[in-house]
Amino acid sequence: MTQIARRRLLQGAALIPAAGAFVPAAQAACVNPIPAKFDETYDVVVIGSGFAGLTAALAAHEAGAKTAVFEKMAFIGGNSSLSGGMLAVPGSSVQKAQGIKDSPEALEADMERIGLGLGDPAHIRFVCEKASETFEWTKKAIGVEWNENLTGKGGHSASRCMITKQGTGQGIIVPAVAKLKAAGVPIRTGCFMEAVLRDADGRVKGVRIREGYVFGKPGSGKAKTVCARRAVILACGGFGADVRYRKALDPKLGEAFLTTNQPGATADAWREASRIGARIIQADWIQCLPSCSPLEQGMGIATHFASISGSLFGFWLSTLSSSRFVNEFGDRKLCTDAILTVINKGGEALAFSDDDGVKHLETLRPGLFAKMLAAGTVEKFADADALAKAYRMDPAKLRAAIAEYNDNLAKKSDPKFGRRFDKAAKPIGSGPYYVSRMSPKVHHCMGGVATAVNTSVLDVMTDEPIPGLFAAGEFVGGIHGAVRIGACAVMDCLVNGREAGMEAAKSTAWI
Amino acid sequence: MTQIARRRLLQGAALIPAAGAFVPAAQAACVNPIPAKFDETYDVVVIGSGFAGLTAALAAHEAGAKTAVFEKMAFIGGNSSLSGGMLAVPGSSVQKAQGIKDSPEALEADMERIGLGLGDPAHIRFVCEKASETFEWTKKAIGVEWNENLTGKGGHSASRCMITKQGTGQGIIVPAVAKLKAAGVPIRTGCFMEAVLRDADGRVKGVRIREGYVFGKPGSGKAKTVCARRAVILACGGFGADVRYRKALDPKLGEAFLTTNQPGATADAWREASRIGARIIQADWIQCLPSCSPLEQGMGIATHFASISGSLFGFWLSTLSSSRFVNEFGDRKLCTDAILTVINKGGEALAFSDDDGVKHLETLRPGLFAKMLAAGTVEKFADADALAKAYRMDPAKLRAAIAEYNDNLAKKSDPKFGRRFDKAAKPIGSGPYYVSRMSPKVHHCMGGVATAVNTSVLDVMTDEPIPGLFAAGEFVGGIHGAVRIGACAVMDCLVNGREAGMEAAKSTAWI
Repeated sequence: MTQIARRRLLQGAALIPAAGAFVPAAQAACVNPIPAKFDETYDVVVIGSGFAGLTAALAAHEAGAKTAVFEKMAFIGGNSSLSGGMLAVPGSSVQKAQGIKDSPEALEADMERIGLGLGDPAHIRFVCEKASETFEWTKKAIGVEWNENLTGKGGHSASRCMITKQGTGQGIIVPAVAKLKAAGVPIRTGCFMEAVLRDADGRVKGVRIREGYVFGKPGSGKAKTVCARRAVILACGGFGADVRYRKALDPKLGEAFLTTNQPGATADAWREASRIGARIIQADWIQCLPSCSPLEQGMGIATHFASISGSLFGFWLSTLSSSRFVNEFGDRKLCTDAILTVINKGGEALAFSDDDGVKHLETLRPGLFAKMLAAGTVEKFADADALAKAYRMDPAKLRAAIAEYNDNLAKKSDPKFGRRFDKAAKPIGSGPYYVSRMSPKVHHCMGGVATAVNTSVLDVMTDEPIPGLFAAGEFVGGIHGAVRIGACAVMDCLVNGREAGMEAAKSTAWI
Repeated sequence: MTQIARRRLLQGAALIPAAGAFVPAAQAACVNPIPAKFDETYDVVVIGSGFAGLTAALAAHEAGAKTAVFEKMAFIGGNSSLSGGMLAVPGSSVQKAQGIKDSPEALEADMERIGLGLGDPAHIRFVCEKASETFEWTKKAIGVEWNENLTGKGGHSASRCMITKQGTGQGIIVPAVAKLKAAGVPIRTGCFMEAVLRDADGRVKGVRIREGYVFGKPGSGKAKTVCARRAVILACGGFGADVRYRKALDPKLGEAFLTTNQPGATADAWREASRIGARIIQADWIQCLPSCSPLEQGMGIATHFASISGSLFGFWLSTLSSSRFVNEFGDRKLCTDAILTVINKGGEALAFSDDDGVKHLETLRPGLFAKMLAAGTVEKFADADALAKAYRMDPAKLRAAIAEYNDNLAKKSDPKFGRRFDKAAKPIGSGPYYVSRMSPKVHHCMGGVATAVNTSVLDVMTDEPIPGLFAAGEFVGGIHGAVRIGACAVMDCLVNGREAGMEAAKSTAWI
């Protein structure tokens, strides 16, 4: 028996005396042939080029490791290239300068509450405690410029979120890519990781890639083996665009539902990680953005009508009951499930406002409304009768729903659903009215591989780290729990990407 | 490229054209050494001796297969030996004889609704449609005797549940074991399955067991290889008693919470199935029985005080607010989460009634009340002041909560939580009062290995069946979804156990 096997056996016996979890050493890993000679050799091999992958590569390079990034798509950035780039930092220097009280503990409490206690407390603590230090590092080491106007999005108990000056996630990707290029760290696009090379001794020693891979053409490109002397970091993102994989986890999210993700958000690396013995947890928690239009690809823009005009200055309407059906300010899970229920019963969920809601939309997001009207994602109706007719609603009930909303607004009280009301909101008039259809889009995978707090990937047989394998970002499960709060994914990617890079760089080389 | 690999590749390409899911044949399975000579040989090897395993063995034997059952514990039955033995059969002959309208479609709708749409519709349809035929089979082929007094438990839209005449799950296990013994099918206790032997061609060809295994002594017993000429059936049950495995999936369910399960309900086979490439889904959905006493092992008896005296004829109380906190007739998930929230905030959740509730308990479950009082799992208090003092509640608020309940009962309306009221319920008097502390116990794993409708286990790389491997019972995921309805687990075990046995028996032999 090897030392590792003996240690595992003893630990297993100590922790779960009654579990009978005897693991013979030869079975602990799924063995892959390790080539006598690799085609390429690095200290640290990073798979994926989103926030987590780029950050990991920078941190590994900073720590002196010879590093390379492999990306299956033809472009750099993965889903991060579509991100709004909003980062939560509890207890930041920016908050202190502005006199805003906050702390890592306050965000920990928010994440545990919103995540319904499914997120691991130790992982949550780690990202919250490291957020401030990592934020400073993004400025110094990457050169990210942050807009210091703080906001608090749904679920945050303090104003602690910042967006890049550039205005999207590109404000992180562009400087990170520039730094890596300047440092001579290659970012190899069109390179699909088809195998993690895990040896009979349980250690990961490299990967097999397909160079010149064309997404959507299975088997394209040329197979090459890449040695990772110290470690492989999986920063492979979520599977939101992979209908087959996600439907097995949540049958509600079939072909009928679109995604905000880029097409490369597939489950290949999830399957491969499982195959070589990584443990995947909570993968059935798949977050949707509730208020997107089914008529647009990606995230689209009609969602801004729903979240500004139709929420702050209007309400949401089920065509089945001709009335409201949910707290428009509920978390994404609550709103998504409520809208899916309306749609699955054959109805439509509409965001609704009058001209006043449109006026505020124009102020906050200038120029978008005309595009929505032109595209037909927002429709205009002269009055309640016209709207009711178009969506087969009962006009009397629709008028009653509007009257009830106005009554609630006057009292600032919503007995049925408990929504809040904006200070600037006015009563809904007699028309014209505007509506957008809402259909949840698959957005973020909360589950993923199980990791130790230091980002080591855990073995499904033992729950102990797999030597030579780390992971970070959306590919990792158990941090956000049941519901991810906005701006916390970027925090997770940056903190854990950096941690994975540092840990990988200091792993003992196997060759 | 093998034919299987080519078929998989083509299917993959057709189903997910953009997924890039190229799977080289040599990687599709985690390879195990297949011995040149096995120690024992059967057509069908069944792992686990609960409802699903015994039923599978009977069906395989009926179909002409040489069959054996291996059970790691020293006793037969697993968790099924603790089951209440209640079976749901929609549209049964018993319902027809009693003029009760019901249908498989009605139970399908119940399961999809209560399961929050997470159960796979095709799997749900299969168990509901096959329930009636399987029920008749249990009488003819096994000799189970059913009490034909029909009941409808929480979540069921019709009276469709039956209990064995014997009164528990033993009413199924005892005759099934007798039939298997008479047929010469061995049920080998003390035999731990330590490996599934999956060959390089992707097929499962047998298992390695440890004969003479003593539960809690890892590595005990003698290793033996067992050939499965046609198939292996995994009927290994849930992991409710495995704190380490379940805590990674739901950190709330740590050491502090007890389980209703037998100690052998560990995750060994879950880990092994993952290792050889089975896909596990929805494992984080772990059902608890909400109203158990923390002072008892297993399911205990105080739960009957909570569900009869404290629900039908009383109510549940949070010591934090000195008032009600949930619909006492909500589903298990709703009640569990509400009670966990009270406990995690430092309070206690109490089931509460007066003498009238105790009187009904005595009628429905004679003799239990005295045992509860003697064990201290139910406590008696002279009046509201005494109860409030013992649990640090506000006596005025407690009296107000009682008055509010009485008021609701008179109006048969519960505006806050929407509970129902029993016809025979009387207003709560001025004392004495009785309470039991409630602490959810881990009860049932809704997740498990992903299977095709014919019970084939699916490969995590391809979502295609793993040749030679079937599964049934609690070990399988994706049938009950988010919340399992009572009496549906027994239905699932019997229907899918039988299906697995029939499918395994007709699999082509590999040797």
